[in-house]
Amino acid sequence: MSPTSTTGSTTGGRRRAAVSVPDLVERARAGEPRAVARLISLVEDESPLLREVMAALAPHTGRAQVVGLTGAPGVGKSTSTNALVTELRAQGKRVGVLAVDPSSPFSGGALLGDRVRMQDHALDDGVFIRSMASRGHLGGLAWTTPQALRVLDAAGCDVILIETVGVGQSEVEIAGLADTTVVLLAPGMGDGIQAAKAGILEIGDVYVVNKADRDGADQVRRDLRGMIALADRAEGAWRPPIVKTVAQRGEGLDRVVEELDRHREWLAGGGELTRRRTRRARDEIEAIAVTALRARWGDVHGRSELDELAAAVAAGESDPYTAADELLATVSS
Amino acid sequence: MSPTSTTGSTTGGRRRAAVSVPDLVERARAGEPRAVARLISLVEDESPLLREVMAALAPHTGRAQVVGLTGAPGVGKSTSTNALVTELRAQGKRVGVLAVDPSSPFSGGALLGDRVRMQDHALDDGVFIRSMASRGHLGGLAWTTPQALRVLDAAGCDVILIETVGVGQSEVEIAGLADTTVVLLAPGMGDGIQAAKAGILEIGDVYVVNKADRDGADQVRRDLRGMIALADRAEGAWRPPIVKTVAQRGEGLDRVVEELDRHREWLAGGGELTRRRTRRARDEIEAIAVTALRARWGDVHGRSELDELAAAVAAGESDPYTAADELLATVSS
Repeated sequence: MSPTSTTGSTTGGRRRAAVSVPDLVERARAGEPRAVARLISLVEDESPLLREVMAALAPHTGRAQVVGLTGAPGVGKSTSTNALVTELRAQGKRVGVLAVDPSSPFSGGALLGDRVRMQDHALDDGVFIRSMASRGHLGGLAWTTPQALRVLDAAGCDVILIETVGVGQSEVEIAGLADTTVVLLAPGMGDGIQAAKAGILEIGDVYVVNKADRDGADQVRRDLRGMIALADRAEGAWRPPIVKTVAQRGEGLDRVVEELDRHREWLAGGGELTRRRTRRARDEIEAIAVTALRARWGDVHGRSELDELAAAVAAGESDPYTAADELLATVSS
Repeated sequence: MSPTSTTGSTTGGRRRAAVSVPDLVERARAGEPRAVARLISLVEDESPLLREVMAALAPHTGRAQVVGLTGAPGVGKSTSTNALVTELRAQGKRVGVLAVDPSSPFSGGALLGDRVRMQDHALDDGVFIRSMASRGHLGGLAWTTPQALRVLDAAGCDVILIETVGVGQSEVEIAGLADTTVVLLAPGMGDGIQAAKAGILEIGDVYVVNKADRDGADQVRRDLRGMIALADRAEGAWRPPIVKTVAQRGEGLDRVVEELDRHREWLAGGGELTRRRTRRARDEIEAIAVTALRARWGDVHGRSELDELAAAVAAGESDPYTAADELLATVSS
């Protein structure tokens, strides 16, 4: 075992055994849940081993379809995720689930609730479920989530669902990470203008009207159809379908999976898959590069160049642009 | 007039007259609303004149108290902002209001609603009101909002209120920008665990229980008091007060202003003001530096080094760490 591939770190008070990266990666590729979990923990802990892990995983990535699930609180996002997993499993697919909570930079841990509600699948070794808190880094989602995706991808997941807790910016970020974005709506969740304002009508590849047994479901569908019809679309562009579901009873999820398959084929056919994945890789490379620069600037270690520049700006002795120039001069030298 | 201080730009189809930065800054400092508005537009447009503007403003900044207002939808944030402005004006203070919508990277414009609801103050030249959409940049709030704050600060505002539309991450970002963060709650808005999860209980300097005439207001106050009592606090640390208001009728806002004043004194007394502002300047300098780097990496202009690295990562031929190393090598050379 080489020194770079082993560590005996202490995280959260627990003493951990030494790790061999090639061994872990081999076991994760064979679908061993503990190895997968351990690799994702290395991602969350920002372990120095990650360079080696990602290099080892790279040739085995690119197979999974990454599906983002977004929607306002109350549309039944958790129930839908659960029902979608059930449907995908019934079709014999291996499924990964990442529940991301970007609104909680303070909590380093997972959301108990996510684990509890997914207990239908807790004993199924064709399903990996992981809750992640994205911490307060500049990178946010851009940093940890794509790396966790790589782990699940290399571990042989056919489909990886990313669900975000919370609304707003994070929804848009999720769409940036996914191959296919599913936007959930439900009757009685506020008017169409609200939905438009949240931006979700511009990011959906598949729209799901959940709670379709309730009053108003047809109206939501009609409104959606109208808005989709209004959008400018190039020839050959994807036209987002609308599927009605009652996730609580597992109804309509087969149609959702059909649309996911159809979208995947469309993505692969026209080169859009490569474009989306290249864009995702760009963001990921940038986030890593910027984090490395921040470390150089002294973001982590005590008094630094950046601190001194910031003090001058705070005192009105300098302005942020001049300070940024001086900071960049330190990188280039 | 020097060539660097003039421009005749066309933005959004409108032809604009040439600008003299020294002249604009002088007029803004004298409190001329049109000059202030124009400077904030330069911020929103990411004008190349900003370097000159910020250098000219720097010596005149640092006087205003920046107050962040956060709270879940439905607590009466807009009404409270409006009532707080009324109270501050009654005390003869000059007030700036920035309404930021970070959830809307798609919309470049202001929110009509914000302007409408603030119409009480539309004709008062002691109040500057501005809605800003933070676009989809890496910097997000970190980029445009602090620069708009500098403009309002130099224009002689005593207090600048920043209100964010939306919840989650943006709330935490607002707290990072503010000297004083006011967290609004109201009865009937969900249980305490929800509030804790959103992280808002860890960022408040002043808590306001709005709609205090409704059932359950005392319970919210008791819950809050309990949580505040539980928090670890060093000696001499600020203990967040809880104020009850009925913003709709303007009740209790005088107490909120008292607490803002008290917090300001505390901040100035112990050096915390300088610490907070230095941290804010750090983030701002970093956001500018990172944006400059992204431009070098070819974020804006066509095919680039970064695009090629991203394509290799997307194809599984490289991994993001190796690619980030190669990217950084181009900066240092």
